[in-house]
Amino acid sequence: MDDRPIALRVNANRLRGRFDALAAIGATGNGGVHRPALGAEHLRARRWFLDEARAVGLRTSVDGAGNHSATLPCGPANAPTLLLGSHLDSVRNGGRFDGALGVLAALETLQVVKEADLALKTNLEAIDFTDEEGTHLGFLGSLAFTGAITATDLHHPGGDPHAFQEALANAGLTEKSILGAQRDPSTIAGYLELHIEQGNRLNTSSHDIAVVTSVVGLRRQKITYIGRADHAGTISMNDRRDAGQGAAALIISSRRLVMAEFPDSVVNTGVTRFLPGAMNVVPERAQLTLEFRAPRLRDLKQLGAALKDLAHAEARERELAVEIEEVDGIQPVQMDARVQAAVAAAAERLGLRQKQMTSGAGHDAQVMAKICPAGMIFVPSVDGFSHSAREFTKWEDCMNGANVLLQAAVVGI
Amino acid sequence: MDDRPIALRVNANRLRGRFDALAAIGATGNGGVHRPALGAEHLRARRWFLDEARAVGLRTSVDGAGNHSATLPCGPANAPTLLLGSHLDSVRNGGRFDGALGVLAALETLQVVKEADLALKTNLEAIDFTDEEGTHLGFLGSLAFTGAITATDLHHPGGDPHAFQEALANAGLTEKSILGAQRDPSTIAGYLELHIEQGNRLNTSSHDIAVVTSVVGLRRQKITYIGRADHAGTISMNDRRDAGQGAAALIISSRRLVMAEFPDSVVNTGVTRFLPGAMNVVPERAQLTLEFRAPRLRDLKQLGAALKDLAHAEARERELAVEIEEVDGIQPVQMDARVQAAVAAAAERLGLRQKQMTSGAGHDAQVMAKICPAGMIFVPSVDGFSHSAREFTKWEDCMNGANVLLQAAVVGI
Repeated sequence: MDDRPIALRVNANRLRGRFDALAAIGATGNGGVHRPALGAEHLRARRWFLDEARAVGLRTSVDGAGNHSATLPCGPANAPTLLLGSHLDSVRNGGRFDGALGVLAALETLQVVKEADLALKTNLEAIDFTDEEGTHLGFLGSLAFTGAITATDLHHPGGDPHAFQEALANAGLTEKSILGAQRDPSTIAGYLELHIEQGNRLNTSSHDIAVVTSVVGLRRQKITYIGRADHAGTISMNDRRDAGQGAAALIISSRRLVMAEFPDSVVNTGVTRFLPGAMNVVPERAQLTLEFRAPRLRDLKQLGAALKDLAHAEARERELAVEIEEVDGIQPVQMDARVQAAVAAAAERLGLRQKQMTSGAGHDAQVMAKICPAGMIFVPSVDGFSHSAREFTKWEDCMNGANVLLQAAVVGI
Repeated sequence: MDDRPIALRVNANRLRGRFDALAAIGATGNGGVHRPALGAEHLRARRWFLDEARAVGLRTSVDGAGNHSATLPCGPANAPTLLLGSHLDSVRNGGRFDGALGVLAALETLQVVKEADLALKTNLEAIDFTDEEGTHLGFLGSLAFTGAITATDLHHPGGDPHAFQEALANAGLTEKSILGAQRDPSTIAGYLELHIEQGNRLNTSSHDIAVVTSVVGLRRQKITYIGRADHAGTISMNDRRDAGQGAAALIISSRRLVMAEFPDSVVNTGVTRFLPGAMNVVPERAQLTLEFRAPRLRDLKQLGAALKDLAHAEARERELAVEIEEVDGIQPVQMDARVQAAVAAAAERLGLRQKQMTSGAGHDAQVMAKICPAGMIFVPSVDGFSHSAREFTKWEDCMNGANVLLQAAVVGI
């Protein structure tokens, strides 16, 4: 390979102009954006993306799941396509970096390669996947792309089924078109996604960029402690069987357990409820959810078992009964070793301080990993804010990430 | 005084017959009763009570607040009246002893005195107060009786105002009649109430009966911990500012504090809520209520200050903010020393093992204490069940309580 590709860099001013133009679509006025999947603002952002791609001579297409693509035939005849992408939808009142940065850096990569008139090993495609955030049905676009979605899935969206049907009609999508959107895996060379970290690990380290090693798996336990409802004034402290004490103890001790024994994992209690829920009645039932994530299936299983043991121990200590219901889970997904190596080499060439990192959030890359070599690049999130208008990544870091994406794409995986 | 009154005892079979007849009114089929104040079952129970009183030759009356009375003119001309009573309403799906036992024992006392044709120092009145349990407006009957209720109170019931207006109309009560129901305190010699303990203290002690020394005071603090909402997968455990951890810590430590340093007091967290309340979001806000009770105002104030300090300490330790809102409170009320002495002497004469005890629940006696010497007698609650169909007191204990009431009434306070 000649040195010409190695010297290529993204055009920071052009990328900044596009970033600002995109952030204005669905802008919330406080620095954030509101672009729920298939809503008016999201559809406007997608049209803008295709217009930008066409304006610089790229071909564009929209598949049956609404995935929007710009393509550049820069590989040999019948070469597979390296996909670069992310998503243009946001959570309600989200930030302007999440998803958008990855799509814009992909578009910029195609434009730089086109302007340099490079011949690569693969064709390139910048892709904007539908509903990554799960406004209606999380990862709809990538699940359809990989053939992993069924009619049953479409009949049971995460959100309101009626709103989903309306949104599909609005976007010109049908159940049939979505189920027919699967791409032939043999035509796909790989998938690489640039994304903000959404956490505080890079921000508080001395590193510029992270090579993502895996997307963590997730499990949930719905835990109910059962004691005895009593008049809170007449029952002595010693005689109470207070379900709330069990729940509170587990909220504290589950955090301690994870920090002491599962350093790569996290646990959260985001929901709790005491019943009957009266100020003057000792709680008979106390419900809470433990949501925990681990980078490897083995860790996820061990952590799940340890949390169950802990939940039972807290119950025994307080003479409470406990019920544990295991809810839906997501398996951990390893990023492809060759893709990781390509990203690491690109960062090395650019002189960036890099580290390896798991992704605590879900991404289309974990879906794509089922059909092709997939990987991710993370750039720092200032103070770790995510899914909020306060989400922020320094422009220098955005450019570092875009250049790593470009370099990995031109050298290939 | 001659020895004849001292030898008097209640008629256990007659009392049992009435107890069973009353328990059938609003019976829930599982051993409990459902007689919310001014509802159809409650009004039926009150009519039954007046019918029973009239049938044995007692005079009956209903005042402007709906308080139902049977009276016996057994004192000298112009003698004041000693009130014996409780309430015939229940909480929704409550027990058959709470309130009912006190009213039936009062009726039985009047009947025994009438049959013995005794001349006492006072007239006697068995009274059934309206809405002790607070279905609409707690202590409505005794508050009106003592002149402590206002039109403003009536416009702000604890329950649904519309349902309250309907219930008043149904029972033939008006705002005007309630505000005019005040009795002249100079005509009242005192108030004595027999009630089940509603706790487990007598049941687990070697005592038969308790002389109530005070009705505890109550305060509430609504506490909100404020941290930072973060994606529960991407933020490291160390970086979280998890409001739920503050709330859980306080639920545990407030209990420990009361048990270690305030042995006569109790605290309860019956309500808690985490916000935004999503399984995958670190709680930004965690709300909880601390409801605490103490027998003396000094203790109540000290405990309130100690709990506030604790709430702040738990916040500081976790770098959380905390907001504390003090909600409505009820002052502790001391039972009259002469009434306590009269009850103690009666129990002593009957050979019962007695102890002194505070009441952790509110009672009409605390309202009556503002205008006259007031006191209470407690009998054991098996396993402390209260406000439930599982509420139970052994019949022998019910009879002990009724005989103490009778003895205190005939000897006088």
